[in-house]
Amino acid sequence: MRDERSAGSLSAFHLDSVRPLIEVIREFGSISRSDLIERTGLSRAVVGHRVADLVERGLVASGNLGESTGGRAPRLLRFRAEAGHLLVADLGATGAEVALTDLAGRVLAQRSEKEDLDVAAGPETILGRIREIFEELQQEHGDAIGPLWGIGIGVPGPVEFTTGRVISPPIMPGWNQFPIREFFGGYGVPVWVDNDANVMALGETRAGCARGHDSVIFIKIGTGIGAGLIMNRRIHRGADGCAGDVGHIQVTADPNVVCRCGNIGCVEALAGGAGIARSAEQAAGDGRSAMLKGILAERGVLTAADVGWCAAHGDQASVELVTNAARLVGGVLATLVNVLNPSMIVIGGGVSHVGDPFLAAIRETLYGRSFPLATRALAIQPSTLGDTCGVIGLAAMVADQLFSREILGEWLPRGRPSAVAV
Amino acid sequence: MRDERSAGSLSAFHLDSVRPLIEVIREFGSISRSDLIERTGLSRAVVGHRVADLVERGLVASGNLGESTGGRAPRLLRFRAEAGHLLVADLGATGAEVALTDLAGRVLAQRSEKEDLDVAAGPETILGRIREIFEELQQEHGDAIGPLWGIGIGVPGPVEFTTGRVISPPIMPGWNQFPIREFFGGYGVPVWVDNDANVMALGETRAGCARGHDSVIFIKIGTGIGAGLIMNRRIHRGADGCAGDVGHIQVTADPNVVCRCGNIGCVEALAGGAGIARSAEQAAGDGRSAMLKGILAERGVLTAADVGWCAAHGDQASVELVTNAARLVGGVLATLVNVLNPSMIVIGGGVSHVGDPFLAAIRETLYGRSFPLATRALAIQPSTLGDTCGVIGLAAMVADQLFSREILGEWLPRGRPSAVAV
Repeated sequence: MRDERSAGSLSAFHLDSVRPLIEVIREFGSISRSDLIERTGLSRAVVGHRVADLVERGLVASGNLGESTGGRAPRLLRFRAEAGHLLVADLGATGAEVALTDLAGRVLAQRSEKEDLDVAAGPETILGRIREIFEELQQEHGDAIGPLWGIGIGVPGPVEFTTGRVISPPIMPGWNQFPIREFFGGYGVPVWVDNDANVMALGETRAGCARGHDSVIFIKIGTGIGAGLIMNRRIHRGADGCAGDVGHIQVTADPNVVCRCGNIGCVEALAGGAGIARSAEQAAGDGRSAMLKGILAERGVLTAADVGWCAAHGDQASVELVTNAARLVGGVLATLVNVLNPSMIVIGGGVSHVGDPFLAAIRETLYGRSFPLATRALAIQPSTLGDTCGVIGLAAMVADQLFSREILGEWLPRGRPSAVAV
Repeated sequence: MRDERSAGSLSAFHLDSVRPLIEVIREFGSISRSDLIERTGLSRAVVGHRVADLVERGLVASGNLGESTGGRAPRLLRFRAEAGHLLVADLGATGAEVALTDLAGRVLAQRSEKEDLDVAAGPETILGRIREIFEELQQEHGDAIGPLWGIGIGVPGPVEFTTGRVISPPIMPGWNQFPIREFFGGYGVPVWVDNDANVMALGETRAGCARGHDSVIFIKIGTGIGAGLIMNRRIHRGADGCAGDVGHIQVTADPNVVCRCGNIGCVEALAGGAGIARSAEQAAGDGRSAMLKGILAERGVLTAADVGWCAAHGDQASVELVTNAARLVGGVLATLVNVLNPSMIVIGGGVSHVGDPFLAAIRETLYGRSFPLATRALAIQPSTLGDTCGVIGLAAMVADQLFSREILGEWLPRGRPSAVAV
């Protein structure tokens, strides 16, 4: 199955030689030729030649007039984000956000599959459904969106980024080593796979509350707990793709706290959504909370959101559950701050919505336990992009892989194309 | 005071335009013009023009013949590291390592000041002495070394890298905000200041046991404990220059463990050299170790090295002290591994020499407490460069700042020169 839009009449387009130009034009939005020459260190002739190439392929256009520096005002060059599109899917434990974006990563259409995609159904089923949604999104948009340039998939588990394979994911049975990249091979465009917290961190850094920050920690507190790390403006993935797997930092030696990873005392087992729900069921059962007991009797199950609701409505046991969980998360964040000294922490994931007392208790513990110098300019904020965060981050990651140069060619991850067929 | 070698006859040399070329030539050692054109994405004419400029200024020379690809074998270009020199000084709490290196960071001469430089004497005294040693090293070498290109200073405290100032250093009284860069202004070359653990991490990554690794943690266990982090091949300094300040991670709630930073229960207070010595004095005092008691009676003081010696000679109490300290360090490293997923941990600093049981206990705790995926390919090794590690790292840092391009011009740290007078 080859997407028709990706099989245009142009031959393979050599990206390496134009990456430095595109990168600068993307970063500045609009830029004059003189500034482009200065910023890239390329000669006037080379810039002229390559800009002509980019204009011919539709990636760059002449835009508005810039400021005159004496003579005639220069015509600015701009990146034509509308010259093509990207397809991205951010998979969660039980649902997915799927989007079609332009080449600047702006979301043109988004589809939320909140509950119908249980990741445990296995890769063939889930990715097959994602491919159907991709095709629906493309059909809705027709030919107005230009050719497909790349695909990005976010998953809730560790990823070997160079091969696009999920490695030993604790909550994705059947996915270990599954060739996700090859699954979408029919599109004839490059496919990148990344961890969900990583792309959320990138999303907030590019388009959300962490914009302009070089060092950012995004902590996702949902059913599980994980973090995405932006260091020196890049995603830090680590040697095995499991950097930021902070849910399994040990916070208690209590042998009764067994984590789904098999270890004892992980922060996720106590302060993740499932952990909070478990503690709430205990509080309902042993009579500490009549409110929780009532909900449990009515619905047969309790969630972290129920605990947040009860805490907001004056239930003392729920306030304690929320505060205890937040203190554990705050302690882990204090360690992260001492180690990484970020300028911004963004808190996302379902549990982050349980209410202000949760964030307040996180902040209190974090400030109390961090090195003062590391917190003198630290900002802590809830995620601003919500359900769009992951797909925005995925599109930014794919666009970076397509259009950013790295410092040296050999640093390019394996599997990154030096040319694409468009 | 202006160094004569830095006031050559050439006018300011615009580095920005040649950085991409120098960077590739430095990385490859020797490279043909065709490969240089391919690697930089620059045109043949631009490469020819700029290489001629670099040859004229002595930074690049024609070297050996490369491999023929059919026609005449190409003459390879090589970076002339001997075209100039760098001066670097790595300050410790009580001593300093000072070196003169070539532009590739190879140490041409090194001076160890083991005990005569107590950092508490204040910046004017210490840096004045460093300047004297710089001049002695230059005089010994005469004019054979070419002009001075840059200066690097390593300090045992947090550094604001963009200004070169030390920020609230706990063990450097009188140094807060001292303008180190301006102190060396008379040399007329750029000056960079960095944290000692950061440059040690870079030293091992470029020239020691961590060569080829992208993500490296260097942990320095001396009087205090600190770490240097290499992420994606770069030093991660953090927003306030205190990334890697892991000595102040809390490992016990015991209120009797007071750290010099003022907080309670820091790992440094128990497992740093001073902490081990304090525990040893207790063990000598309460009769747990006759061996330590004997040394204390003879010398009036105990050090971590004494504990290591006693442990190696069968003293059970000393073995316990070493093992306990190592387990605490191992626990902190396990957290770092879960967060950062490095491929290499290098252990350095005076306390790392107390013996094999220390490293064995660190390893045991680290593997027991880390996420299995994060340790499947993790290497852990003692520092191989020893006393040269800091100065090698400093020279590499200065050479990087001079000759590496960043992804975009605006990402250059403030204070990095776009031109230098040579």
